[in-house]
Amino acid sequence: MGSSPPVNSLPVAYQAWTSLAVPDWLNKGDNAWQMISATLVGIQSMPGLVILYGSIVKKKWAVNSAFMALYAFAAVSICWATWAYKMSFGEKLLPFWGKAGPALGQKFLIKQAALPATTHYFSNGGVETAEIEPYYPMATMVWFQCVFAAIAVVLLAGSVLARMNFKAWMMFVPLWLTFSYTVGAFSLWGGGFLFHWGVMDYSGGYVIHLSSGIAGFTAAYWVGPRSKKDRERFPPNNVLLTLAGAGLLWLGWAGFNGGDPYSANTDSSMAVLNTNICAATSLLVWTWLDVIFFKKPSVIGAVQGMITGLVCITPGAGNYYYYCLSILYFTIQYYTLRQQER
Amino acid sequence: MGSSPPVNSLPVAYQAWTSLAVPDWLNKGDNAWQMISATLVGIQSMPGLVILYGSIVKKKWAVNSAFMALYAFAAVSICWATWAYKMSFGEKLLPFWGKAGPALGQKFLIKQAALPATTHYFSNGGVETAEIEPYYPMATMVWFQCVFAAIAVVLLAGSVLARMNFKAWMMFVPLWLTFSYTVGAFSLWGGGFLFHWGVMDYSGGYVIHLSSGIAGFTAAYWVGPRSKKDRERFPPNNVLLTLAGAGLLWLGWAGFNGGDPYSANTDSSMAVLNTNICAATSLLVWTWLDVIFFKKPSVIGAVQGMITGLVCITPGAGNYYYYCLSILYFTIQYYTLRQQER
Amino acid sequence: MGSSPPVNSLPVAYQAWTSLAVPDWLNKGDNAWQMISATLVGIQSMPGLVILYGSIVKKKWAVNSAFMALYAFAAVSICWATWAYKMSFGEKLLPFWGKAGPALGQKFLIKQAALPATTHYFSNGGVETAEIEPYYPMATMVWFQCVFAAIAVVLLAGSVLARMNFKAWMMFVPLWLTFSYTVGAFSLWGGGFLFHWGVMDYSGGYVIHLSSGIAGFTAAYWVGPRSKKDRERFPPNNVLLTLAGAGLLWLGWAGFNGGDPYSANTDSSMAVLNTNICAATSLLVWTWLDVIFFKKPSVIGAVQGMITGLVCITPGAGNYYYYCLSILYFTIQYYTLRQQER
Repeated sequence: MGSSPPVNSLPVAYQAWTSLAVPDWLNKGDNAWQMISATLVGIQSMPGLVILYGSIVKKKWAVNSAFMALYAFAAVSICWATWAYKMSFGEKLLPFWGKAGPALGQKFLIKQAALPATTHYFSNGGVETAEIEPYYPMATMVWFQCVFAAIAVVLLAGSVLARMNFKAWMMFVPLWLTFSYTVGAFSLWGGGFLFHWGVMDYSGGYVIHLSSGIAGFTAAYWVGPRSKKDRERFPPNNVLLTLAGAGLLWLGWAGFNGGDPYSANTDSSMAVLNTNICAATSLLVWTWLDVIFFKKPSVIGAVQGMITGLVCITPGAGNYYYYCLSILYFTIQYYTLRQQER
Repeated sequence: MGSSPPVNSLPVAYQAWTSLAVPDWLNKGDNAWQMISATLVGIQSMPGLVILYGSIVKKKWAVNSAFMALYAFAAVSICWATWAYKMSFGEKLLPFWGKAGPALGQKFLIKQAALPATTHYFSNGGVETAEIEPYYPMATMVWFQCVFAAIAVVLLAGSVLARMNFKAWMMFVPLWLTFSYTVGAFSLWGGGFLFHWGVMDYSGGYVIHLSSGIAGFTAAYWVGPRSKKDRERFPPNNVLLTLAGAGLLWLGWAGFNGGDPYSANTDSSMAVLNTNICAATSLLVWTWLDVIFFKKPSVIGAVQGMITGLVCITPGAGNYYYYCLSILYFTIQYYTLRQQER
Repeated sequence: MGSSPPVNSLPVAYQAWTSLAVPDWLNKGDNAWQMISATLVGIQSMPGLVILYGSIVKKKWAVNSAFMALYAFAAVSICWATWAYKMSFGEKLLPFWGKAGPALGQKFLIKQAALPATTHYFSNGGVETAEIEPYYPMATMVWFQCVFAAIAVVLLAGSVLARMNFKAWMMFVPLWLTFSYTVGAFSLWGGGFLFHWGVMDYSGGYVIHLSSGIAGFTAAYWVGPRSKKDRERFPPNNVLLTLAGAGLLWLGWAGFNGGDPYSANTDSSMAVLNTNICAATSLLVWTWLDVIFFKKPSVIGAVQGMITGLVCITPGAGNYYYYCLSILYFTIQYYTLRQQER
């Protein structure tokens, strides 16, 4: 404090750095926000969806369902750092795939983040995909993208709860991540052909929700329906824990959509507000529909409404424009849900 | 990294912006802190108080109580963005009320935050209420204030658990928010008459706790006591979940009091430390009192002590000055609590 | 927004401050990150370990175990602010101990953080321990170090669950904190003799895990084994809640290791990524070992693997160098665990 410095002087705390750990391109506000966003998205899966899945199924399937989600979260993390990050965002191998490789070396990780790894050019020299270069290190970016990939697989798990063998799931997770998720991510975000065609995706509306929705639907089809006994009666085994998981899923979405501008800027602020209002609206609409059609509000209906709202806002949190696409997604989501209940 | 720049040069990451999303007045550290503070306060309600309420009541009332809290959180969010934010912090309509209006338009939301909407002047030209202008967009401010309003209503719900009809609650929430909370907020924070009289409120000691405490007390009185059977025996149905909720309530309070300086500054740091130490002290005092008077520590007593501590520190987290007022609050809080237990 | 300012101009939001609350040395990005890191570490204990302990033990011990953790968290907080912070990081009293004193005064808490309180010099004038001076106030530092001390004691509690009298535990916590933790902290971090010998500790590998591991082992030895009936059968009473606690423990570790560089810099980013990948790897290795040796994956085994991974990465999250030391720790940890199961 002491005497006031001239208004235009640069505060000491923002002056050049005292160590190698604070390079010129590092914005600590952005880095803090991105790390906490990643942590929130991680919490959405573990413990969020882990306990939501474990508690919304029949008691007999509780531990199995929770473990499916937990295993997926852990398995994706390792595959991601070891080969899948570079397949999704690395150097181009094919128009829809990046070259596999580890994202683990210190030299790579302390550099400024760049997404995708290189600017893509057309043969005529025009820019196909611009690189973005957020003001924090690759390490932050790799982990942020990792929790996105992980929650995609965990959401997919929701479609096969209580009807898939655990050991089969242990194999399925790395395979789907490697041969499906990376393709979607590279094609759309990594500079691939979909992006080039002008398809936009705010925060994983397609890569995450659509692809895991379709995969869930397909997997549910191949795995087949639940056992006759389960189909007849499948009550949630612990409604309060379902709400605990749902709460972490809801509020954690601030990291999901708020982290997607890769900076703590005004886009993040808009995304956080829109996301929460949309979840609340959808929750209330489902609750009122329950009151109107079934004469009684239902807390599980409210949770389904909330999740639908969160999922719908995702591709459009930044630009209201894309709401219409949400409708398509909604239908698939809804159908998969009903499919599960049969 | 490479060669060191001159000490006074402005790091690239803080130089002027690359996009419309990073205006001149945006401080990313402040914005990150305010968004995460809002998220923490949201988590205090959902899942924090939702599972705390659901688990501290008799099993029969578990889902009903949790749903009351969840409904309130969602309903407040929508009313807030649609009309109540502007009633609380917008242009003056009456000395104790702002003009209603939506806080949803992109044009409004991406501007720099301002609280209240305008500087209020006396007729002689002197400043009645200064506007504060934090270094982040309105969108961040609207959501931060929204979770405050929401937790006020959720705290109020605590007084009528297990004795109010759910459909009545569905009506009560928007009405109380619209006709009571907004009045308190505008009068004190929005530049209304109470502020003008010199009443200060660090972080919602009056607007939130006192008003929801009084409303809870009043509502409990009108709704009437619980059924005879419930009054005789009302054991918590799941102590561990009560602790889970209480933990999120406690640590989330860092966002409640720490977010209130509207900046990640030294006031925030003081508030976070004071809040946590006060909660710990109060928890221990209640535990020791239980040991002294009942020969046995009680975990539910500890949780009540913790909540009392959090509530008491709130009006005074910034200035120890206001502790005395906490005593008043404490008494009301305590009485309502006992009232519930009868 | 309007017209673009010259690229090198200092944005308004980073220009000198408008109030005493924003001194020259304050970096809001660092302060935000440190406060949120502290909050995450707090959440690891309460509700994280509180519900993990409460649910992993036999039903009969559930509330008692959870309360042990909660009590420890609260008791450490008060002792820390009242005398133990300065014993750990204050002025030198003995080569292994600082002078006790309160860390509560506003004047002390709003100053720039400094760790330890003074630079220590050799008798020949050379620097023994350099002071670090992060860009935020002492208040932030005191609370961050407080949650570290608290989780050390809570981890220690894990070794005596279901075999220690609660009132004995009420006495043990302040004593162990005062006479053991402070010694380790001052010796290693506070500028004491161990640091001088060149021992390095990234994020509490020794002070926290080793000391609480050894104390746990010793305490478990003195307290004696569990009752015969408990030794025969000791099933977790609620696996889903165990996962809820484990999830908060895992993701909260981003604050533990990510907060340790005392800044949102590239070291933090590396630490967050490494920590999470290591936890995931360890979880999967234990799961696969269960499949190989017992033909069946086990979710409790997975959680134990996860915790082991988190603990092992801690001393080495910054520099892979120290992995070898983890092995030693692992062995003690593992043995204590087995010891408990006997």
